[in-house]
Amino acid sequence: MNDQEARRRLAAARVGRLATVTPGGTPHVVPVVFALVDDVIYTAVDNKPKTTVALQRLANIDATGRASMLVDHYAEDWSTLWWIRVEGSAEVLKVNAEHQDAPTKRERPEQVVIGLDALIHKYPQYAGHPRLGPVIAVHLTRWRWWEAAAAT
Amino acid sequence: MNDQEARRRLAAARVGRLATVTPGGTPHVVPVVFALVDDVIYTAVDNKPKTTVALQRLANIDATGRASMLVDHYAEDWSTLWWIRVEGSAEVLKVNAEHQDAPTKRERPEQVVIGLDALIHKYPQYAGHPRLGPVIAVHLTRWRWWEAAAAT
Repeated sequence: MNDQEARRRLAAARVGRLATVTPGGTPHVVPVVFALVDDVIYTAVDNKPKTTVALQRLANIDATGRASMLVDHYAEDWSTLWWIRVEGSAEVLKVNAEHQDAPTKRERPEQVVIGLDALIHKYPQYAGHPRLGPVIAVHLTRWRWWEAAAAT
Repeated sequence: MNDQEARRRLAAARVGRLATVTPGGTPHVVPVVFALVDDVIYTAVDNKPKTTVALQRLANIDATGRASMLVDHYAEDWSTLWWIRVEGSAEVLKVNAEHQDAPTKRERPEQVVIGLDALIHKYPQYAGHPRLGPVIAVHLTRWRWWEAAAAT
């Protein structure tokens, strides 16, 4: 895998696992759908069920400004395994007037539109899903990858 | 999903994503194969390529004593999605004499045997793989899960 191939595989992956850290220092990890635009990962929180689960990752990013995301391939043939991990500074972007009550969310209308457009384009499932919530943007500063084929 | 079903799905999952935190507070996440025995998750580091990647998760656990692991199901039919996340105190267990040079690793011969036995039993791939490295044990104290079917 080289830089170009790592970028291709990251962009094409259908699911990532987003890791953040709570203000108290506990690791937190959730599966996310995401879109890569230039060097930014966008992922949106579903606006419908305002669960504490959804809010935890937002609170973590607001508090720490950092996130890491993993995409990987698992198969029973371990010679085919690979993973790509990206890290960077993260922020929560406000989507619309519904979130006016959250003054810590930054207003970045252009970034929100870029992120939501990319998500809707990548995932047709979002078509019937008008109420996407806050958008997380992770500005990638570090890439790491590994593949079994290269290690043996 | 109830407690029993969450435990069944966690035990049966072939891959998990292990999240830790660096001493500097950066989130770290890697894919792992693992085995669940009672309330302990065991995962082993491959002893062959002593990469910095492998060492990072060990250093994180030595420094913080904490880890979180996620198993999840992704499919294009989002009504079938689910995930289970577990958290707990984590430790790195020394495997054999090769690791005598790492005095911070705790000697727990029984736990190491239980963990390695469970891993070898779950993954036939380990059969031709005699040099498993340090074993990570995560003593689970918190479970969370979510499934789309229950949310709608």
